[in-house]
Amino acid sequence: MDQLKQNALAERFLALHHDPRLLVLPNIWDPLGARMLEASGFPAVATASAAVAFSLGYDDGQNIAFDEMLGVIRRIAHAVELPVSADIERGYAESPTEVARNVKRVLLAGAVGINLEDSLAEGGPLRPLDSQRDYIRAVREAALEQGVPLVINARTDVYLSPTTATAEEKLAETLSRAKAYLEAGADCIYPITLDEIESLKILVAETNAPINVYAASSTPSMRELESAGIARLSLGPGLIKASLTTMRRIALDLKNYGSYDAFTRDAMSSEELRQLISKHF
Amino acid sequence: MDQLKQNALAERFLALHHDPRLLVLPNIWDPLGARMLEASGFPAVATASAAVAFSLGYDDGQNIAFDEMLGVIRRIAHAVELPVSADIERGYAESPTEVARNVKRVLLAGAVGINLEDSLAEGGPLRPLDSQRDYIRAVREAALEQGVPLVINARTDVYLSPTTATAEEKLAETLSRAKAYLEAGADCIYPITLDEIESLKILVAETNAPINVYAASSTPSMRELESAGIARLSLGPGLIKASLTTMRRIALDLKNYGSYDAFTRDAMSSEELRQLISKHF
Repeated sequence: MDQLKQNALAERFLALHHDPRLLVLPNIWDPLGARMLEASGFPAVATASAAVAFSLGYDDGQNIAFDEMLGVIRRIAHAVELPVSADIERGYAESPTEVARNVKRVLLAGAVGINLEDSLAEGGPLRPLDSQRDYIRAVREAALEQGVPLVINARTDVYLSPTTATAEEKLAETLSRAKAYLEAGADCIYPITLDEIESLKILVAETNAPINVYAASSTPSMRELESAGIARLSLGPGLIKASLTTMRRIALDLKNYGSYDAFTRDAMSSEELRQLISKHF
Repeated sequence: MDQLKQNALAERFLALHHDPRLLVLPNIWDPLGARMLEASGFPAVATASAAVAFSLGYDDGQNIAFDEMLGVIRRIAHAVELPVSADIERGYAESPTEVARNVKRVLLAGAVGINLEDSLAEGGPLRPLDSQRDYIRAVREAALEQGVPLVINARTDVYLSPTTATAEEKLAETLSRAKAYLEAGADCIYPITLDEIESLKILVAETNAPINVYAASSTPSMRELESAGIARLSLGPGLIKASLTTMRRIALDLKNYGSYDAFTRDAMSSEELRQLISKHF
């Protein structure tokens, strides 16, 4: 990707985090989903690592090869004119040097943002704060070397990891990590599954930085989040779950000799689908 | 793929075409869709070239590189224990020799069935009957050389191609082509978009071979098709249209500060999705 174009996309993406409006990112996993979001007027596109992995037949948690993940990121980044943020899990790396090398490849693939998480394994313990800070610092330095103002969304898995900590202790840990990650070069903090509004407000006030919330059934409404100063909302695998649920319903209905309504009535026409696709190809 | 295993899958797939029950193939485009069908109890899986192309950001009609299409076929064939049939459009070939070479690669990717169409371009004129017969003969010979009893679904685009022919003339042309294709080694005939029940009955009676119908809103019910002796029902891009329609509805709802219900309520859980995936990986 052209460097000037990529930098402009990165700047546009960062600015969306400092806009008073909530930045909603219904995470996708393929070029078609990205094109759908662009055609629907979304200002940016983000992948969900779980959705990418699932669609290709892998479980989440870095089971997919990094090269395969890069291929998906590249195809999506080339499918739209929007900023693309790539969920790269733990960076597919065992050291700051490795994460730096991998982030350079993500930038070459055309992404202008990344999600980087701080757990050591899926649902496992967290990487020590100092160590994760070194990873984030290495990512920022790699982006600077590449000359791209990469938007780093630092995910902290405090609320996912197995712990006997109290609510106060978890919030305190989240705050410490948020501050350390921001100081190391992160642009946004993503305390995944934390959706208790008072805690979120404290996080916004104490960090004075963009905060990313994960949308689940218990999550406060989008208006409430926006009023609380939340910058960004992610769906994780929300879209792929809804999509697969629809597909399974149709498939099971057909197995029972059902009607064709579910996929012919109120469904996008081939013409519409083709228009969506042909804008760029 | 192990040769004995592949041959057993091919034989199972062919037998499903001679079963009095209608073989329903809700066409998919990725390993996740294939796993969903397997978990839902479907006996076989078929790709739709349009869906594969769309998902990767290409329009239908051989715009996707054959190698990329092969990669998708390989991933799907390795994701399930079921027979997998690959829609390979016009074979990505300009001669019988080329189609033979490509079909060998499809077999090496693990598929046990193919769709091969007889139009010269998307919605364009048909390849002359004799020429298409040579293509099918070359495919059959390639499969024999490879030692796999490949199930060849010969699609005829008589009802898609621009023509001033009468209904009788179209049916006569379909019959001629069906007989020629069967004689050349096809196992099933797919007169795409023909869904007039009396014509379908004539086709079944005159060919005494499995017939594939495309499911659209105007198509007779599955019970009616089964009673008429139809062997196989395809959805083409039906599932991807329904899936994308669901995703777009959710995305637009979120743009309007809607609720999270559409992707949290009645949607598959992460646990279910993970179970679906983890069976094989």
